Amino acid sequence: MPKIDISNVPFKTGSSYPEKYAAQMEGRSQQSLGDAGGISQFGANLVRLAPNALSSLRHWHEQQDEFLIVTEGHLVLVDDTGETPLSVGDCCAFPAGDGNGHHIVNKSESDGAFLVVGTRTATETGWYSDIDMKVEAADGKMTFTRKDGSPVDAS
Amino acid sequence: MPKIDISNVPFKTGSSYPEKYAAQMEGRSQQSLGDAGGISQFGANLVRLAPNALSSLRHWHEQQDEFLIVTEGHLVLVDDTGETPLSVGDCCAFPAGDGNGHHIVNKSESDGAFLVVGTRTATETGWYSDIDMKVEAADGKMTFTRKDGSPVDAS
Repeated sequence: MPKIDISNVPFKTGSSYPEKYAAQMEGRSQQSLGDAGGISQFGANLVRLAPNALSSLRHWHEQQDEFLIVTEGHLVLVDDTGETPLSVGDCCAFPAGDGNGHHIVNKSESDGAFLVVGTRTATETGWYSDIDMKVEAADGKMTFTRKDGSPVDAS
Repeated sequence: MPKIDISNVPFKTGSSYPEKYAAQMEGRSQQSLGDAGGISQFGANLVRLAPNALSSLRHWHEQQDEFLIVTEGHLVLVDDTGETPLSVGDCCAFPAGDGNGHHIVNKSESDGAFLVVGTRTATETGWYSDIDMKVEAADGKMTFTRKDGSPVDAS
């Protein structure tokens, strides 16, 4: 059945970030709708943000295009140019290799949500704009280091 | 600017289908939001359907995953299993190579719309479920033939 039974798709919470950054992801949850529907070439994830929650730490991708549409609430795009308010139906595109780091923040007093699509590639490097961290992904495993490749401090 | 100025993205109407089928696409228009936002690895198109309009002739893709979310109105998914009503927020996934031909139909009396994402591949073959037609795409050019490769009749 192509229609996805969203109410039965599990919510993922928590973070894959190193411990010193993981707590910043409180209030974020995600349903992996594309996976639930059996597609694999891109992710299609419904991300829910409680008030004050972030979609991710601000970042950009070397190889993977990203696209999102707001489906609920009032959110804010934060990128190198500043803050841009987003409402239901607003869309954003983030071309691979564009070093304009971005994330979505819920500065409202109600939940917000968006559907985000990102290409899946065999390997990927992502760069974090506001902290000394990058991520390298290969074989489904993510490795976070400082930008020079040294370990992220645990403290 | 990652936020897409949807009001300034042109609407495409008409059809690339052979003449004998093209008229069935009346009432459908599309805004290519992903292209407008500078991404290229997948298409992200906002499709608007007037009452009685079809998203496409019923089809499936050999190589390209597809995913959609309804953004306006009440639409109907038609696939091999029959008809499934869709409302705002409902999502569907169509895995590459799954021969369950599908399209979206507006059987309501108001406009409807959905955002559809599809992977872009260098070549592709699509098969039409209800008529004797296939499409082969390469180098950005689409070639429609009967399923045995012979020309689609003009009449």
